[in-house]
Amino acid sequence: MTTHPETPLLDRVQSPADLKRFSDAELTRLAHELRTETISAVSMTGGHLGAGLGVVELTVALHAVFDAPRDKIIWDVSHQCYPHKILTGRRDRMPTLRQKDGLSGFTKRSESPYDPFGAAHSSTSISAALGFAVARDLGGLCETGHGDAIAVIGDGAMSAGMAFEAMNNAGHLKRRLIVILNDNEMSIAPPVGALSSYLSRLYAGEPFQEFKAAAKGAVSLLPEPFQEGARRAKEMLKGMAVGGTLFEELGFSYVGPIDGHDMDQLLPVLRTVQQRASGPILIHVATKKGKGYAPAEAARDGGHATARFDVVTGAQKKAPSNAPSYTKVFANALLDHAATDDKICAITAAMPDGTGLDLFAERYPSRCFDVGIAEQHAVTFSAGLAAGGMKPFCALYSTFLQRGYDQVVHDVAIQRLPVRFAIDRAGLVGADGATHAGSYDIAYLANLPGFVVMAAADEAELVHMVATAAAHDTGPIAFRYPRGEGQGVEMPEHGEVLEIGKGRIISRGARVALLSFGTRLGEVQKAAESLNARGLTLTIADARFAKPLDEDMILSLAADHEALVTIEEGAIGGFGSHVAQLLAENGVFDGGFKYRSMVLPDIFIDQASPEDMYRVAGLDAKHIEAKVLELLDIAQIGDRRA
Amino acid sequence: MTTHPETPLLDRVQSPADLKRFSDAELTRLAHELRTETISAVSMTGGHLGAGLGVVELTVALHAVFDAPRDKIIWDVSHQCYPHKILTGRRDRMPTLRQKDGLSGFTKRSESPYDPFGAAHSSTSISAALGFAVARDLGGLCETGHGDAIAVIGDGAMSAGMAFEAMNNAGHLKRRLIVILNDNEMSIAPPVGALSSYLSRLYAGEPFQEFKAAAKGAVSLLPEPFQEGARRAKEMLKGMAVGGTLFEELGFSYVGPIDGHDMDQLLPVLRTVQQRASGPILIHVATKKGKGYAPAEAARDGGHATARFDVVTGAQKKAPSNAPSYTKVFANALLDHAATDDKICAITAAMPDGTGLDLFAERYPSRCFDVGIAEQHAVTFSAGLAAGGMKPFCALYSTFLQRGYDQVVHDVAIQRLPVRFAIDRAGLVGADGATHAGSYDIAYLANLPGFVVMAAADEAELVHMVATAAAHDTGPIAFRYPRGEGQGVEMPEHGEVLEIGKGRIISRGARVALLSFGTRLGEVQKAAESLNARGLTLTIADARFAKPLDEDMILSLAADHEALVTIEEGAIGGFGSHVAQLLAENGVFDGGFKYRSMVLPDIFIDQASPEDMYRVAGLDAKHIEAKVLELLDIAQIGDRRA
Repeated sequence: MTTHPETPLLDRVQSPADLKRFSDAELTRLAHELRTETISAVSMTGGHLGAGLGVVELTVALHAVFDAPRDKIIWDVSHQCYPHKILTGRRDRMPTLRQKDGLSGFTKRSESPYDPFGAAHSSTSISAALGFAVARDLGGLCETGHGDAIAVIGDGAMSAGMAFEAMNNAGHLKRRLIVILNDNEMSIAPPVGALSSYLSRLYAGEPFQEFKAAAKGAVSLLPEPFQEGARRAKEMLKGMAVGGTLFEELGFSYVGPIDGHDMDQLLPVLRTVQQRASGPILIHVATKKGKGYAPAEAARDGGHATARFDVVTGAQKKAPSNAPSYTKVFANALLDHAATDDKICAITAAMPDGTGLDLFAERYPSRCFDVGIAEQHAVTFSAGLAAGGMKPFCALYSTFLQRGYDQVVHDVAIQRLPVRFAIDRAGLVGADGATHAGSYDIAYLANLPGFVVMAAADEAELVHMVATAAAHDTGPIAFRYPRGEGQGVEMPEHGEVLEIGKGRIISRGARVALLSFGTRLGEVQKAAESLNARGLTLTIADARFAKPLDEDMILSLAADHEALVTIEEGAIGGFGSHVAQLLAENGVFDGGFKYRSMVLPDIFIDQASPEDMYRVAGLDAKHIEAKVLELLDIAQIGDRRA
Repeated sequence: MTTHPETPLLDRVQSPADLKRFSDAELTRLAHELRTETISAVSMTGGHLGAGLGVVELTVALHAVFDAPRDKIIWDVSHQCYPHKILTGRRDRMPTLRQKDGLSGFTKRSESPYDPFGAAHSSTSISAALGFAVARDLGGLCETGHGDAIAVIGDGAMSAGMAFEAMNNAGHLKRRLIVILNDNEMSIAPPVGALSSYLSRLYAGEPFQEFKAAAKGAVSLLPEPFQEGARRAKEMLKGMAVGGTLFEELGFSYVGPIDGHDMDQLLPVLRTVQQRASGPILIHVATKKGKGYAPAEAARDGGHATARFDVVTGAQKKAPSNAPSYTKVFANALLDHAATDDKICAITAAMPDGTGLDLFAERYPSRCFDVGIAEQHAVTFSAGLAAGGMKPFCALYSTFLQRGYDQVVHDVAIQRLPVRFAIDRAGLVGADGATHAGSYDIAYLANLPGFVVMAAADEAELVHMVATAAAHDTGPIAFRYPRGEGQGVEMPEHGEVLEIGKGRIISRGARVALLSFGTRLGEVQKAAESLNARGLTLTIADARFAKPLDEDMILSLAADHEALVTIEEGAIGGFGSHVAQLLAENGVFDGGFKYRSMVLPDIFIDQASPEDMYRVAGLDAKHIEAKVLELLDIAQIGDRRA
């Protein structure tokens, strides 16, 4: 495999304090070593590569100039934090990245004092940094001491409403606060002339004279074709940044753009800011995603995320897939309907690839809307489309739909508008860990009046649910499905419209009924097979709907069995809670009935494979089997809590 | 009382179509009549007065120039919609405003085809209007036809992240879309000179020549002292608007500012825009909240909301209060702690008065933060403060906390940061109706690992919960309390720190235990008294905590009684669902046990008094009594479902 790169300077870095002893020339060499180290590390684990490569110089410069952990460096989203992890005492654990019990793929407070505020969702860093800045000025007690608060935020993340809210508040409070705008959209880098004249105008005063010369240096960034995605946000940012007007209107001093790969610009600018800044200041840094690694630079997405790969060729080492992903199944099913129904349109919030809507955008560009990192708008825009007679499919990850929750309640549910929510990454998601888990959507949607809430048990079911949603014109409807591959079931040619609020019996048995909502059905079936080998034949049902419940089916399951167990990929308050309410209201418990609801446990589960995470969650076949045996008071053999 | 004003022109208006027959001079007179009519109507019902008075001319001009309901006029928040309601066929129902079975205080799709998109929460209008605009261009089917989409949004609402997200997307999509910025912050109206020269520069081209003269007319708006609240947002807006730069960067054409009380400016500008606009356009209209009614103009808040009042004197007719409001009790308790603990700070999102934090801001201005209409930022800023060693109390209405839900999960709960959430307006809220109900917070907080979730049973309990939150440093904690007055209980001098996860037995009886979470405790006690008169003595308990549950107390209540009923002011998925899970897991149901969970029903409940709403919800003493009798299979006398 890869031989480990030579890293004589990096080898001398135990903590950021060691960077203080390096000359500027050594820091430049250190950045080079850090880049090869980052490439080497990610080649062995997979993970987010491009973002980190784009901020290698920035990371070195920040740690050379500032004094972490006393100074709080907050990486927005934190896909770009690998070089930071390598410099802050976690180099030897990089081979464990994104694996069970290993380093998180994101910054994480519990992992290191150098991660003052964890992140994984976008656009939170300025709010958090402002909190630190204010706490510092008010005498807050912080174990690592209180220095500068520095948010490093990308141009895409800056476009979210939350970042705007934070800038607005920061400008008002006038505290010393440093925001570094990591702008990696090369094609919008403004001409050097405008930059230069803007900088001289902005920093004509004495304090900034010393780095003006440096900052004037040519920013040799070639234009490139636009990438897909939150392109509009970046266009806008371009306009703002050339003059820095918006930032200034918001009360920030503005410096930039400077070349984020040129230590001779980064170091003097950061040093001057560190020495002289009084209020909030924004440093606009132009970088290139994937910088310095040809396969990443060449990739359309700058090498955003990767499987393990060969460093020399860049070839990724992916396991062969056995079944299409749920995402792909959803996307294809939607295309199928869009072909015959021109009212169908699709909405994504900066995730055209992740939601599979890139296909829709290609085929029906006029009906596909990427609104940028803007879930609040995505939901209400969808509501407006629905009110205007369209059939919007708003495709979001479960965890990001949380950003639009009020809009789901206020604009969609209360008005009973037929917005279709395609909820991807439902349940536990694997390497992205707790921050990306889709744990709460069943609970927070199923208690909204008039909502229909479905979960697909397998990829064929997902096809039917897309058809059901397309046909459902009388109110909001949501269907959830997990990350990853389907079960490999036979696929229907076209989706069938399911009857709203009707589940299905998979197989009939005696004594215990297992009622699944979602893709745990596979584990339920495995558990049933194992129990079958012990002579127990169970009834298995797929609820399909958490709302409305199939009351008839559930009450007859209760009537015909001595016990009922529900299983779902969600936290308490969702499907099982609705079933419990139904059973209670119908007096099922009054005379005695064994009911159990298996839900995600009351812990945040760290990254691992989804299978491992579900084992930790107690929602795999073994645990289901154990639950049934326990209910029937049958002694269990072997290690029941594997 | 008030004699009804003379309104000869208004009397001829059955629908907006009638305005087309009026001359411009008549429209000006109509606006005058509409203003007196609005004042007269609100004087009899109470409600939101100032916002409507500020847009009387704008409302007349919009309906004269545009063609509703084919054109979609979307009022942001819609506090300002009363004049619009009067012009759109609802004049005779104005005496029912904000009352049970009466007109909503907001726009509402189910109420009128002239309300194409309901609102009540802020900053949704641009997203919705963009949805209509796109639907129109894509051939969406809309009963009233598809014309222009017009969002009318205030300067405060424009500062929310959601509005920024929508502008960003609208500028990209380039559809014809009209945004009217209703800027009622007088003190920031730019000088006429800058406006005039800006307008000539912007509209030097041929199309706009005809109204340039009109728009140049003097905007005679006197500066006034700043008001409290989202002041910063407005300062910023000023900067943006003088040049309109931001709007232009976002892809909008910009017109303004024009005098929103001068029909000679409004009519020509709107007509020109109506005839000529192609892409998105923003019209910046300067108005005065409370315009034309001296008591409102003189009020610090522009006569924002009022009880019934005497038109001549402006004197409000409020019922005398019997007990302090929960809001006030919270605010005073927090002040008490802040006096001895300088780490305590307070955060509000544009609601200093509504949350009671105006007192805190006066006493401890350096520790009180009004972040504007920016709940997402409010939550994560609080998280940053907590990470920095402060003790932040983030005070939001339950319904608005929905806006910051992802931040609660991602930034607070996952990082286990000790942010204190003071959740006001929990449960049903009365005249503001379904859009403002705080129905979901128990469910969406209590399933977050590590969260402590409390509800106050009365105002004394609230004082203890503030103390408990102040002392709780190990993770997030929330306490909820309703709108309105307390129960009039005796108040403790200082709050006591409650033991986390411990409830209290209020009184002991036999057979049935009633377990209350929140202020339904009063109704529970009433029900118990009534049952007592029948010879049934019940056990009454106050859970205090939905999380962590007082498992010992709940399991012994189950062991010692034949039935247990939980009561809460929240939707399914919350307290009762957690209790059901506890009972199920502990096998309580296995041998037979009567359990019922009384929650908000699965409907959105229209405005009425809170008492009436809880009657509709089935959560008053009568319904609790009926539930107990039903459980005990005792025949009920009289009309049990009043």
